Amino acid sequence: MNNFTFYSPTYFVFGKGEENRAGEMVKRFGGNKVLIHYGGGSAVRSGLLDRVKKSLENEGISYVELGGVKANPRSGLVYEGIDLCRKEKVDFVLAVGGGSVIDSSKAIAAGTVYEGDFWDYYTGKPVEKALPVGTILTIAAAGSEGSPDSVITNEDGMYKRGASGEAYRPVFSIMNPELTTTLPPYQTACGITDIMAHLMERYLTNTKDVTTTDRMIEGLMLAMIEEGPKAIKDPSNYEVRANIMWAGMMAHNNSCGVGRSQDWISHNIEHELSALYDCAHGAGLAVTFPAYLSLVYKHDIPRLVQWATRVWGCDENKENPEETIFEGIKRYRAFLKEIGMPLTLAEVGGKEEDIDALAHTACYGEGGDGKLYGFVTLDEEQVKEVYRKML
Amino acid sequence: MNNFTFYSPTYFVFGKGEENRAGEMVKRFGGNKVLIHYGGGSAVRSGLLDRVKKSLENEGISYVELGGVKANPRSGLVYEGIDLCRKEKVDFVLAVGGGSVIDSSKAIAAGTVYEGDFWDYYTGKPVEKALPVGTILTIAAAGSEGSPDSVITNEDGMYKRGASGEAYRPVFSIMNPELTTTLPPYQTACGITDIMAHLMERYLTNTKDVTTTDRMIEGLMLAMIEEGPKAIKDPSNYEVRANIMWAGMMAHNNSCGVGRSQDWISHNIEHELSALYDCAHGAGLAVTFPAYLSLVYKHDIPRLVQWATRVWGCDENKENPEETIFEGIKRYRAFLKEIGMPLTLAEVGGKEEDIDALAHTACYGEGGDGKLYGFVTLDEEQVKEVYRKML
Repeated sequence: MNNFTFYSPTYFVFGKGEENRAGEMVKRFGGNKVLIHYGGGSAVRSGLLDRVKKSLENEGISYVELGGVKANPRSGLVYEGIDLCRKEKVDFVLAVGGGSVIDSSKAIAAGTVYEGDFWDYYTGKPVEKALPVGTILTIAAAGSEGSPDSVITNEDGMYKRGASGEAYRPVFSIMNPELTTTLPPYQTACGITDIMAHLMERYLTNTKDVTTTDRMIEGLMLAMIEEGPKAIKDPSNYEVRANIMWAGMMAHNNSCGVGRSQDWISHNIEHELSALYDCAHGAGLAVTFPAYLSLVYKHDIPRLVQWATRVWGCDENKENPEETIFEGIKRYRAFLKEIGMPLTLAEVGGKEEDIDALAHTACYGEGGDGKLYGFVTLDEEQVKEVYRKML
Repeated sequence: MNNFTFYSPTYFVFGKGEENRAGEMVKRFGGNKVLIHYGGGSAVRSGLLDRVKKSLENEGISYVELGGVKANPRSGLVYEGIDLCRKEKVDFVLAVGGGSVIDSSKAIAAGTVYEGDFWDYYTGKPVEKALPVGTILTIAAAGSEGSPDSVITNEDGMYKRGASGEAYRPVFSIMNPELTTTLPPYQTACGITDIMAHLMERYLTNTKDVTTTDRMIEGLMLAMIEEGPKAIKDPSNYEVRANIMWAGMMAHNNSCGVGRSQDWISHNIEHELSALYDCAHGAGLAVTFPAYLSLVYKHDIPRLVQWATRVWGCDENKENPEETIFEGIKRYRAFLKEIGMPLTLAEVGGKEEDIDALAHTACYGEGGDGKLYGFVTLDEEQVKEVYRKML
């Protein structure tokens, strides 16, 4: 196991009706003037935003608002948010939404107190300070409510890049599974796929003898395999939503990823899909991950056999372990299909003739040196091969 | 799933040599004058204490020392520590040791800044403030390095009681698995047993549909079943020690216990054993848990069948599910025996003629109303029955 530090100081408030504690939480963490940042109209229509405002007002906390965050949140709105926060002397950013809203909020929180261009943080500069961010989560997916990460799409070229730093851990996250029971099945499935992908990126490690985190990841995947299809069939089931919501946080706050190398190549490959075709991140991952696995599994046959047998319940074929792995990938695909996810490039709006450009941007996009590094090292030709496996 | 809050703000510094960062960490969390609290001579003999002192000195931090913490830490030393901290104007307590040292440190940290008797916190008063506590962990077991809990034995009657509160979460915990490679096999096994018991106490729930936390607990138990015997056979194996150490923290910081009722009756029953016979807490738990399960399993047959099949790999006997559970308990006992744990009352120095008194103290000891409440409700007669099952 590698040496590591782990610091997850977010105060999680989980359960029915807990959004009404937004004011109490902002106060607890020192906020006086809040930016409420949100996405489209659903937070307005559902009355959630009104409940949040009322909760702030009850504590005597003033606020300004900025809506309009889209999936794959854009740099343009971040700049707008930074200007607003500076002008209004905002000292706390409250994200009301899913991963995109939270990621956008983190970028605004950092950019407001940074003299340079916030995009510096998305090209390698460690995030050292930011306004405190609180979240009210409305979709179980990205895990941004408990993570030190943020991903933003730069509109000047439509490429996605991530930033990370302790200052990006939300000071509190309110997680009410009720808020997710009205999500459309497609978005629900995208969230589940993202959670599975976060677990897979940690599972694909080159660190040996990491039994404890392996078993935790496997446990969380088994929970998703059990609960995922239930959420599609019975969207209003609170218990199912609650299990998925806690798993989404645990999958990405890194308690199951410490001390081990992680992969993240699939996320890089996917980012080009959602940036170019503006497909949902989860949908892009559903297309990417099985394709990627079917290319790279040979790098560590025992690990992938372990995955197939423990997570997907495959019988181990000792004479032909690859068969076991193929069966695991097959079951992974079947699971994604069952919850309504796409499995091919065409289904997310992709075209075969774009593959060269996709692979090139993935390998040479901002900061790239022509290769992708993680569980394996892929050159541009191999990245093309992953995209071709999506056809 | 029940509503809950989860707040685990401890900064974990994990890995080889990390005790040399003690000074840096104390400084980070505002300590100027430190009480170094420790147990017997092993921290001295191994040179650990000297490395810690040097690290503090390098940061210009002054300190006083108080050693002598025993297993099942006593109230007398806590009072001594409180007097010392007040006299020396200590503002930070640094625990160098295992669960007993950490629990004693927490009690001193709370007592120093409380006008009344610290024991108030151990008879129901919530812990609201305490000096910051940092830990340097030397045994994977109690999970106190990441928990808000502390257990102290009152020497005035030799009874153990627990206290809990956010102020009891360590601000940092340095976890170097190397420090545990010199532990005797018996202490190692006691630690593993304690970790398993912390998981079991959470697994025995009356909350329905808690798939995610069930799967996490099962995963951590599977890791212990795999790594535990390796630690006994090959004590110096760093990777094995590292897996056990992280599992010990995860088992008890409550990320796998949120939103569900928990049991803790076995801990109550065990506390009387270690208080009366001064046996190791882990050894007492090894004797208690299988005995307890064999009495209460009928309360939720499906849950215990799930445990036996998923954790112990038992085949499910659908016609006679009790057989599956018995096989699971048998394998649990075999595991405990394999790592060198006692399984009977006599092995921890207990006597049949003490059973009435043990059960009476467990049920009517300070604050008791004659019953133990948790996964089931046990009256005094049933508690006696648990003790008799240890014969």
